Amino acid sequence: MNKGLMIVVDGGNGAGKGTCLRDIETYLNDLELEVVMTREPGGTAIGEKIREILLDKSAGEMCDVTELLLFAAARAQHVRQKIIPAINAGKVVVSDRFDSATVSFQHYARGLDLDLIKQLNDIAVAGLRPDFTIILDLDPALGLQRVASRGSDFDRLEKENLSFLERARQGYIDQAQADPQHFATVDASQSFEQVRHEVLQLVEQVISRHKQVSHE
Amino acid sequence: MNKGLMIVVDGGNGAGKGTCLRDIETYLNDLELEVVMTREPGGTAIGEKIREILLDKSAGEMCDVTELLLFAAARAQHVRQKIIPAINAGKVVVSDRFDSATVSFQHYARGLDLDLIKQLNDIAVAGLRPDFTIILDLDPALGLQRVASRGSDFDRLEKENLSFLERARQGYIDQAQADPQHFATVDASQSFEQVRHEVLQLVEQVISRHKQVSHE
Repeated sequence: MNKGLMIVVDGGNGAGKGTCLRDIETYLNDLELEVVMTREPGGTAIGEKIREILLDKSAGEMCDVTELLLFAAARAQHVRQKIIPAINAGKVVVSDRFDSATVSFQHYARGLDLDLIKQLNDIAVAGLRPDFTIILDLDPALGLQRVASRGSDFDRLEKENLSFLERARQGYIDQAQADPQHFATVDASQSFEQVRHEVLQLVEQVISRHKQVSHE
Repeated sequence: MNKGLMIVVDGGNGAGKGTCLRDIETYLNDLELEVVMTREPGGTAIGEKIREILLDKSAGEMCDVTELLLFAAARAQHVRQKIIPAINAGKVVVSDRFDSATVSFQHYARGLDLDLIKQLNDIAVAGLRPDFTIILDLDPALGLQRVASRGSDFDRLEKENLSFLERARQGYIDQAQADPQHFATVDASQSFEQVRHEVLQLVEQVISRHKQVSHE
């Protein structure tokens, strides 16, 4: 393929993003594709510093708009410094979260104006949009149980209450339903083997569709 | 006075902002006004963390849009957490830099689109605008000499070249000329005593005008 592409894996915490991302990396490496694994917020040195501010548990007093602007700043750097150059070099970029998470958490869960979020996202992404976003869908009560059982500490966003996380989940579902060309949800309450199977099947479809388009 | 007000001191580095700010603080304290001294980027715990990222000399690869979004994030927090509550409590807020610096450095010097800057500033300031901005105007070549002579190290923004700083200076001059109700420039190449005299005279005018308006 000439030009690369971008795949996003998103969803609530505890839905198994980490494991799926490792599987996707192995799968793409086996296809001998050049892969760039990355994440949001973060993905660059500057973005990781912004991530530290965003996830800092002592930063309880952060205003919603500040949070939104910090996400946008990290994304602006991520897109320009890492994602666009990789795509232009023919690589496959796989990101742990991207703009779908901002819509879910900042609009659906936090209640910030959707136009404001879109306005800032447009500034951040410089015209880029992911080729495909895979949403791992899971009841947040179950997600939090899984996070707790692996002994992880809760970060600032995970400490939000359950109805907050339920609203975010609805945001993912709505985004996926509104744009099936660019989104699919996978039921993450299924067996781990079944989730992996469905995720890799989606990745395979995206890659093969991309190859067809590239050869047209 | 019932409601407080906000005064900004701005201008290039080496123009003597620090000394003027201390003089203003003393002057306002002598008037028995409640004073909040603050600065941008920064002014809050979160804003100071953002400041560290912005001024980090190792962050040479920061994109212009990232920089602009980080300034906006710090300002959004500053306005909501510190400035608006202080003004509502009748205090006088004195800030070392504010939105005028963003217009000068990011638009005039860096070349970013003015509409984009205004769009982000509107999001950040939540309707707030400073009552008055005092610009210390100085030839940047002289400013850099002063910074060097006090043995300070140059931060990331000061390391920009001279024509960059000259464009920023022009930005301050243009802003002041366009809105004399809210801006004044002071020639910072004058003797320190003269600069202090003119700055405190401006502050006195702003305070007395504010008292009149409050009593109408």
